[in-house]
Amino acid sequence: MSYRPVPEDKFSFGLWTVGWQGRDPFGDATRDVLDPVESVRRLGELGAYGVTFHDDDLIPFGASDTDRERHVKRFRQALDGAGMAVPMVTTNLFAHPVFKDGAFTSNDRDVRRFALRKTLRNIDLAAELGARTYVCWGGREGSESGAAKDVRAALDRMKEAFDLLGAYVTEQGYDLRFAVEPKPNEPRGDILLPTVGHALAFIERLERPELYGVNPEVGHEQMAGLSVQHGIAQALWAGKLFHIDLNGQNGIKYDQDLRFGAGDLRQAFWLVDLLETAGYEGPRHFDFKPPRTEDAEGVWASAAGCMRNYLILKERAAAFRADPEVQEALRSSRLDELARPTLEAGETPAALLADRSAYEDFDPDVAARRGMAFERLDQLAMDHLLAARG
Amino acid sequence: MSYRPVPEDKFSFGLWTVGWQGRDPFGDATRDVLDPVESVRRLGELGAYGVTFHDDDLIPFGASDTDRERHVKRFRQALDGAGMAVPMVTTNLFAHPVFKDGAFTSNDRDVRRFALRKTLRNIDLAAELGARTYVCWGGREGSESGAAKDVRAALDRMKEAFDLLGAYVTEQGYDLRFAVEPKPNEPRGDILLPTVGHALAFIERLERPELYGVNPEVGHEQMAGLSVQHGIAQALWAGKLFHIDLNGQNGIKYDQDLRFGAGDLRQAFWLVDLLETAGYEGPRHFDFKPPRTEDAEGVWASAAGCMRNYLILKERAAAFRADPEVQEALRSSRLDELARPTLEAGETPAALLADRSAYEDFDPDVAARRGMAFERLDQLAMDHLLAARG
Amino acid sequence: MSYRPVPEDKFSFGLWTVGWQGRDPFGDATRDVLDPVESVRRLGELGAYGVTFHDDDLIPFGASDTDRERHVKRFRQALDGAGMAVPMVTTNLFAHPVFKDGAFTSNDRDVRRFALRKTLRNIDLAAELGARTYVCWGGREGSESGAAKDVRAALDRMKEAFDLLGAYVTEQGYDLRFAVEPKPNEPRGDILLPTVGHALAFIERLERPELYGVNPEVGHEQMAGLSVQHGIAQALWAGKLFHIDLNGQNGIKYDQDLRFGAGDLRQAFWLVDLLETAGYEGPRHFDFKPPRTEDAEGVWASAAGCMRNYLILKERAAAFRADPEVQEALRSSRLDELARPTLEAGETPAALLADRSAYEDFDPDVAARRGMAFERLDQLAMDHLLAARG
Amino acid sequence: MSYRPVPEDKFSFGLWTVGWQGRDPFGDATRDVLDPVESVRRLGELGAYGVTFHDDDLIPFGASDTDRERHVKRFRQALDGAGMAVPMVTTNLFAHPVFKDGAFTSNDRDVRRFALRKTLRNIDLAAELGARTYVCWGGREGSESGAAKDVRAALDRMKEAFDLLGAYVTEQGYDLRFAVEPKPNEPRGDILLPTVGHALAFIERLERPELYGVNPEVGHEQMAGLSVQHGIAQALWAGKLFHIDLNGQNGIKYDQDLRFGAGDLRQAFWLVDLLETAGYEGPRHFDFKPPRTEDAEGVWASAAGCMRNYLILKERAAAFRADPEVQEALRSSRLDELARPTLEAGETPAALLADRSAYEDFDPDVAARRGMAFERLDQLAMDHLLAARG
Repeated sequence: MSYRPVPEDKFSFGLWTVGWQGRDPFGDATRDVLDPVESVRRLGELGAYGVTFHDDDLIPFGASDTDRERHVKRFRQALDGAGMAVPMVTTNLFAHPVFKDGAFTSNDRDVRRFALRKTLRNIDLAAELGARTYVCWGGREGSESGAAKDVRAALDRMKEAFDLLGAYVTEQGYDLRFAVEPKPNEPRGDILLPTVGHALAFIERLERPELYGVNPEVGHEQMAGLSVQHGIAQALWAGKLFHIDLNGQNGIKYDQDLRFGAGDLRQAFWLVDLLETAGYEGPRHFDFKPPRTEDAEGVWASAAGCMRNYLILKERAAAFRADPEVQEALRSSRLDELARPTLEAGETPAALLADRSAYEDFDPDVAARRGMAFERLDQLAMDHLLAARG
Repeated sequence: MSYRPVPEDKFSFGLWTVGWQGRDPFGDATRDVLDPVESVRRLGELGAYGVTFHDDDLIPFGASDTDRERHVKRFRQALDGAGMAVPMVTTNLFAHPVFKDGAFTSNDRDVRRFALRKTLRNIDLAAELGARTYVCWGGREGSESGAAKDVRAALDRMKEAFDLLGAYVTEQGYDLRFAVEPKPNEPRGDILLPTVGHALAFIERLERPELYGVNPEVGHEQMAGLSVQHGIAQALWAGKLFHIDLNGQNGIKYDQDLRFGAGDLRQAFWLVDLLETAGYEGPRHFDFKPPRTEDAEGVWASAAGCMRNYLILKERAAAFRADPEVQEALRSSRLDELARPTLEAGETPAALLADRSAYEDFDPDVAARRGMAFERLDQLAMDHLLAARG
Repeated sequence: MSYRPVPEDKFSFGLWTVGWQGRDPFGDATRDVLDPVESVRRLGELGAYGVTFHDDDLIPFGASDTDRERHVKRFRQALDGAGMAVPMVTTNLFAHPVFKDGAFTSNDRDVRRFALRKTLRNIDLAAELGARTYVCWGGREGSESGAAKDVRAALDRMKEAFDLLGAYVTEQGYDLRFAVEPKPNEPRGDILLPTVGHALAFIERLERPELYGVNPEVGHEQMAGLSVQHGIAQALWAGKLFHIDLNGQNGIKYDQDLRFGAGDLRQAFWLVDLLETAGYEGPRHFDFKPPRTEDAEGVWASAAGCMRNYLILKERAAAFRADPEVQEALRSSRLDELARPTLEAGETPAALLADRSAYEDFDPDVAARRGMAFERLDQLAMDHLLAARG
Repeated sequence: MSYRPVPEDKFSFGLWTVGWQGRDPFGDATRDVLDPVESVRRLGELGAYGVTFHDDDLIPFGASDTDRERHVKRFRQALDGAGMAVPMVTTNLFAHPVFKDGAFTSNDRDVRRFALRKTLRNIDLAAELGARTYVCWGGREGSESGAAKDVRAALDRMKEAFDLLGAYVTEQGYDLRFAVEPKPNEPRGDILLPTVGHALAFIERLERPELYGVNPEVGHEQMAGLSVQHGIAQALWAGKLFHIDLNGQNGIKYDQDLRFGAGDLRQAFWLVDLLETAGYEGPRHFDFKPPRTEDAEGVWASAAGCMRNYLILKERAAAFRADPEVQEALRSSRLDELARPTLEAGETPAALLADRSAYEDFDPDVAARRGMAFERLDQLAMDHLLAARG
């Protein structure tokens, strides 16, 4: 198999990923500014189908209207030239010092209003460019100390903000949905809506819940030591996986944003298996940072690696699911029984209570002797992942 | 101040806490079996108002009906003698080997049905003893490997189970609500509904969501590196803090179940501050394990310590909130502004867009110069926590 | 390739691994006792060359001398019958309640003396069975609270104990070396000598440092979020890798003891690459726990998986190192320059200071432009790991 | 008690701490450049006795010799004016892009040589300013991927570098010792010498081991989930605590560099108790970053908080140690027995083997019944920490 990406794979990249200059908490930029037009061209050549951006990635913060139009125009031309789409857009509400205490939940009310206006403005651009998903990452919505943020008040402010954005796209008739991106910490000590679960719970309290879903990032869940596979499965179960950020992370530490496939390889495998079998149809969006050790060549090698790794893992997951021995092993581990409802159709509590086989005549000691055969199943998975079958 | 607990403090303990014999993954029991009757008596003497239990804590797994009645009768007498309540009851769906792959989401359907029956039976007892909260901790609902659990199917099974339990208490007219207890891992590699957020999101998909809330455990959130204060604030914000398990944990590692106040002292302080200021009226329930280094005397010292520490922290939090200098510092950090809605009453997107002061005339560079004064505020909090003011 | 283990692979297993009955902090045993004789036979059939044990794995704690001899005799016969070696032996100083505060560093002096005697007795057996390595895991040498252990005094006691053991094997003329096994926590809140580094530092202060090395366990280093590859490389660099415990772990959480290859697959790959290229000649010892979901068949499948995975990874690492494109990529990343000393032979500080090319004429801005080409190199490694080259 | 710092407290601060401008991975500077002269003056007024610096904190990277002299002269005058010392100096080998793959262990040999020259030059300045400790933090000595760094070769290069520095200070007759600062990760995926233990082990392999010790940083050990108290106790035990970096960290996540006392308060207490009782005589050096939410006023409040918190904790630890009830509790927990050697003076293995009381006549079941009374002891500690005794 060639592992060459094509547009049908729906791979997309943020301008800020390949364009990252390598500034980190302990060091200066190691790479030059990358022209968004160049990024569009190169990513297109590599096989991506789309690019995404924060407003400030495309149009410098504070640019004049004239400059803004010029930037957008050049970008549109590049997109057209490369046949690239803009499936998602997002707002930078964290880089400028004014957002040092957050944006939608900053303690400063005028900062909150400014953040809303900055977002509304960029939503117009997103709609204009045909994006269908608007991602909201609340990078600095949080705190380092306990009294600095009244979390319940902050969630009220967060709800206000999202309700306003939802009202706006509804009024404007934009075909745009919001995807909330959770992260547990960094750059704040603790960030609000720290995991997929917290974000899913939050959006249920909004005025138009149907407009909101989540944009989980692989590494963000792993920064809390959580299973990406489990978290994203719950998002799918809730009908809320609107977008996804694919990258790599080596466990609980600072946000690494490694290329997809680096970091926890096994979770990457199960994640691809899940996305491919659950019918997720959105973009496979890479949100990574080519390490600052790399020059431009390394940047593109890293971007190509993201897509290549996805395709390798997709091939392996498909082979795993197609293998008759695997299917038999899944039955030995009673995955078929898990798929079957626990109750008979229409079974009431009273009916269950009347079923002696469920309790009085059930011998737990005997049932406990059945092995689950998970080790054999997992070894088969590993063999497929490593192409070591046969 | 005396820090002597009284029933009005609503302190409760699980029978399994003081009764823990000290068996751990690497060692045998270090303490004898503790008679529940003795636990009720001693906890009452120490100032607790209630005890809680898993079915198997009170009635050995597989006991005959006669034995069951005898155990319940002795326990009732002890409760009456000590003037103790049973505010919460829960089910042990993890100790017997039959639950090795979980209970409500075991791949084995007969195990799932057995688990439901075991729970229904104990719900009757809970209602009989006057409990108002039924806690469900899915200790083994999870997996160690990726194919072993189809998470979406498992969540379907989980929903089935909770919907059945909800139907049952409704039919029976029990005044009982369910509190789902999240935990990220241990004893399974990954546990379903790993955090407060995931549990809050899950219960929104149930048939009678109003019957379900959460029972966060301090240490469980900390095992994922999450802020307890933030997670519980979100539960309160959602109106879903039905119960709480107080204990101590030193960061991301195995489940330590230290006495309350041990582990992360600062988070304990902010948690007490939150519970006391947010109007939480449920029990302050301690779910800890006196370390296996301790003999019986150490067990009771440890239990007394839980309550003492809550009272110390409550005193310190109250002093913090009452201090005029703190109130001024909170205003300097603009907590009052955070409490104020971002939008004017009834303000529409159009109105916001028309407000030039929010964007066109707002100078982010000037606004960014305002310090948040969080360090001074946090030092005041620390001074109050340590009684080092003045 | 067949991935069938043979004795030359030097695979060994602890009796306690396949014999683990599945008791965990929240549940009872799910498997029956396994006769050590059966373990020897089955492991031999699977291709292992050796078994290892704690004294109490073979001879129940407190057995009479007669029983002891009988157990040893049966075991010897089993070893002979299966052609199996005993390359390593260790002491159980953690399961009996008497060790609840540790053994060599228990606050109780008589416990410390008892622990030494228990160890000396088992060292005799180790020597008798031909073991060359004696592993010491101080499972309970630690504390949960700050005043409970004076760490400096405890390290004095630890040194006393190890010096005594060293004196003993020297006097007896045993051809036996000690391997200290680090672990950061669990079952104690914090364990002394928590990482490979701390253990390496400690043994430098012993009377006969040449007798002591380390026995790193993959999962134990990962419980502290550390790179196994880096830690073991430092042990090799210090000439102190006397033994190794191979298993799997999914990041920072409770000690999982998964089969080798499960958990962090990428670190497993780099570890095998390191062991095979660094000339490590000791046993490849698996210290894992077949999950308690498994029956006996699952236990043996899990044990076989450990060896299979090692062989797969060994094959992939060898292919990686042999690939001319990899060798070229290593040069592009200047690994050859890293192997070259920084200083010229005999170069003094004065000579370095006189070399203008090192500073005055060195242009850091120009040098900084060189990309390290690590992403390409790592993708080649990933391709080899996944057999996705070509 | 006033908690006002005085020079005798030996509090020192890095210029880079109060001077941090707040640039982080997701945002720009929020504070202006701070003149080192201003820092010296303000820190002196607050009660510090010394300041420390990286070369580039004082003299911009690449400054001409004339500028360099001017900067040094101004700084000296400020020191003299404020009566401040320079107890420690260090090198910035991480900020300039040339160090993107490290310094002493960069794969690029010319970078390694440049790094050595940069360090030698700054050592001269350190000696000139009367510093007695030279800290070496290898911030970028590490890797993100497995083949990128041959760890054993890198440790060879690290040893070469340190041996050269040791030779240089010896030749020059400088009264200067080196303190190696460990850190597990960030800004590299894995950093060499990740913990106090690894650094202690490494320096044993240097040519002049007596010249090298460690400079542990509170937060760095906590980033690996390790006990700071235990790690620093081992450094003291080895006679190698040459310097210490005090700050705060909330568990395993990105490097927070909170003010001392923030983060894990209990570990801060035990650390101060250890430093004050173990006779550590070096500076109490704060290496923190005032959060970027703060303006200049917040910076100084944060710096003052570091010292205040140390003094509060010192007072509490002293009261704990002086309390007769604590002393009795320590005896109940047999800390006095831990201080007593396990063996009699001159006791040989043979003598121990002949002591029947140690084994044959020792009843472990009886001994196991003794409680360790750690919970009472820890509650006394907590009461003292919180000033809640009486």
